[in-house]
Amino acid sequence: MKQSQLFTKTIKEVPRDEESINAQLLIRAGFIHKEMAGVYTILPLGLRVLRKIEDIVRNEMNKIGGQELYPAALQDKTIWEKTNRWDDKIVDNWFKTKLKSGQEIGLGYTHETPLTKLMIKYVSSYNNLPVYLYEICSMFRNEMRAKSGLLRGREYYWKALYSFSKDEQEHNKFYEKMKGVYTNIFKKVGLGSKTYMTFASGGTFSKYSHEFQTLCKAGEDIIYLDKEKKLAINKEVYSDEIIKELGLKKENLIEEKTIEVGNIFSLGYGFSEPLELKYRNQNGEEKLVYMGSYGIGITRLIGTIVEVYNDEKGMIWPKEVAPFQVHLIQVGNNRKIKKIAEKLYQDLQGKKIEILYDNREDKSPGEKFVEADLIGIPLRIVISERTIRESCVEIKRRDKKKVQLVKINHLLQFLNVKRKVKNVKQQRKV
Amino acid sequence: MKQSQLFTKTIKEVPRDEESINAQLLIRAGFIHKEMAGVYTILPLGLRVLRKIEDIVRNEMNKIGGQELYPAALQDKTIWEKTNRWDDKIVDNWFKTKLKSGQEIGLGYTHETPLTKLMIKYVSSYNNLPVYLYEICSMFRNEMRAKSGLLRGREYYWKALYSFSKDEQEHNKFYEKMKGVYTNIFKKVGLGSKTYMTFASGGTFSKYSHEFQTLCKAGEDIIYLDKEKKLAINKEVYSDEIIKELGLKKENLIEEKTIEVGNIFSLGYGFSEPLELKYRNQNGEEKLVYMGSYGIGITRLIGTIVEVYNDEKGMIWPKEVAPFQVHLIQVGNNRKIKKIAEKLYQDLQGKKIEILYDNREDKSPGEKFVEADLIGIPLRIVISERTIRESCVEIKRRDKKKVQLVKINHLLQFLNVKRKVKNVKQQRKV
Repeated sequence: MKQSQLFTKTIKEVPRDEESINAQLLIRAGFIHKEMAGVYTILPLGLRVLRKIEDIVRNEMNKIGGQELYPAALQDKTIWEKTNRWDDKIVDNWFKTKLKSGQEIGLGYTHETPLTKLMIKYVSSYNNLPVYLYEICSMFRNEMRAKSGLLRGREYYWKALYSFSKDEQEHNKFYEKMKGVYTNIFKKVGLGSKTYMTFASGGTFSKYSHEFQTLCKAGEDIIYLDKEKKLAINKEVYSDEIIKELGLKKENLIEEKTIEVGNIFSLGYGFSEPLELKYRNQNGEEKLVYMGSYGIGITRLIGTIVEVYNDEKGMIWPKEVAPFQVHLIQVGNNRKIKKIAEKLYQDLQGKKIEILYDNREDKSPGEKFVEADLIGIPLRIVISERTIRESCVEIKRRDKKKVQLVKINHLLQFLNVKRKVKNVKQQRKV
Repeated sequence: MKQSQLFTKTIKEVPRDEESINAQLLIRAGFIHKEMAGVYTILPLGLRVLRKIEDIVRNEMNKIGGQELYPAALQDKTIWEKTNRWDDKIVDNWFKTKLKSGQEIGLGYTHETPLTKLMIKYVSSYNNLPVYLYEICSMFRNEMRAKSGLLRGREYYWKALYSFSKDEQEHNKFYEKMKGVYTNIFKKVGLGSKTYMTFASGGTFSKYSHEFQTLCKAGEDIIYLDKEKKLAINKEVYSDEIIKELGLKKENLIEEKTIEVGNIFSLGYGFSEPLELKYRNQNGEEKLVYMGSYGIGITRLIGTIVEVYNDEKGMIWPKEVAPFQVHLIQVGNNRKIKKIAEKLYQDLQGKKIEILYDNREDKSPGEKFVEADLIGIPLRIVISERTIRESCVEIKRRDKKKVQLVKINHLLQFLNVKRKVKNVKQQRKV
């Protein structure tokens, strides 16, 4: 895309009404726009990041047998009453509204209840199970305070999968698989080295659950981490008993601040019992369905990546989720430079390399570099009078200081080699 | 996809709480699930249709220079008050709710207001215009009655584009282009021969607008149509004056019932004036931005396609938006049939033909055919003892009566030839 056509611009001033680094940088770089506290419109650059994460997550959900649906946001009070989750004293973050008839309805903050209800229609026999449903959609939580940008929104974009199994044993097998799938997803979005599976509270429905926690000073969670064993305990359940149960040693655990980027829950019969989601087993006996739920906040993940990967100049996107792979910057506006830059832009696009081409003629080189650092695309390619004198472009990785001259007719090869090396690495990891 | 793995099942009984054909058929076939009147969860088969329409629409919006964003659903009351559209006496379909602070907020039913506000940040000079923003997302309308299935939802999925132009002249050029784009979209989703551009009321902001109306007995709109000139007038603005203005003749106009599937509006300064969205022109003078909006209800389009293309047995999807292109039905469960059917399934999938494979062993051939007709995939391929005796499969188009035997090793060629002919036709039309 040509930057001259992008309608968003970067902003120098730090927005005064935002405390968090992620909101400040994302707003300044034109990735999001604040509508009110905790509510953001995702702008084109931000949407490119969101779609990349969404695609990574969707692929993993499909691979594990998930079937996607698109749920309604508006929620029928009567079924939530059955699962005892309508009362504001029990669930304190409902947004509620009314139909013209006066009938109260809610805005979904999770969907175990309606999907359990839905499954009654389709599950009657053991033949119909297991089923894994997932959704990728906007959700709503009436947060008392929303001051962490995309980390805790009143409106957010997430993926949730709900598992419906015949019994605890079948459930446990899937639950264990999901641990691996989640570990994979966080690797693929670039947070692998900083994200740890964490033993956490099970909430209303089971003794324990598993969170995926990313090390970050801006985090609101505290975990006790065994870095070597890649396992952690959330402060809320941290005890000598748990340490022992997990085979960990107190002296190996270090306290860390973290952001919760995903969680997986066993729900047991917590929803299938009140809503009577049952099936007949092979002996003709009526049994309750055993459930689990598995969430990842996609907008929260965007916020987390920004909190983890930034410097004083701006954001530093991991390649896998960057809005573009290459930021091509044209320095100088004479005919020759424009012609060569335009050709390079076309050639790289032709090779399916995602490229933002800063062809703006009313910006100085200095302004362009400052903006490029703020936006944080992984690879910057500069083309200027000086570089074309040597038939070269200047290349700089956003996360390194070094600049490097590369011959223009070697550039594709240079980028391809880099890519291939990356692919091989990824394959090995997976 | 193997039908044995699809968690939804078809339902014989017509749902008693649905009056509309589209809701009845879509629910029975497992495309949607009703949460409450006018609120549906989109199930996997329905989501496949929705994504196809979404992709067609997105491609057209990108081609015309649209930049996609993903808007917030929650709406800030203060800016809607400025455009005089918060009061329930003026806009009677708001869903309103409250933050914990007691501050009232709304659920978006359209987004001219917040996007005009957003653009103030990014528009200052004539250089920044025109801009075409679009969104594809869920929207909310507090409809008094919601009894038409996907035709009029309380929650629905739509595309809207908002244009921001320097002046009326620049706006008009884009508006004219959009007429062509919309005509194209309705062709591509299979409604081309039944959809007509219609002169309609301009609402609050301009004298006239243009609707795209699809002929359908279930429609709630009435138009007066000149079939030859492919132009119509909505009853609400039908008058001798308009007939004359459009160069039509009363005797050529026939009254038709229709469904409005899209509309394009000139908004003029209706939003830019109250919100003060201005720019400086080449002479340094301050000018207001001239706006337009262009909507297509994607879920409504699904409902319309079902209303238009169905028979007593079920739905008949146009190829372009069908959940799958081929419904492969295995009749009989002996090893040989299963092996051949499985191989055919793999081969067709390998050729990127979207295929639903009815491999269920607990259903009779009769049941399978009835379900296939209800689901309405364009091409049915049956493989049975009888057909393999002749090394054939039996082929039937959902919209034709004729069945045809085709040699298995000619099948790919047969399907490909059909496809190529179709592509050529489409190119000509476009």
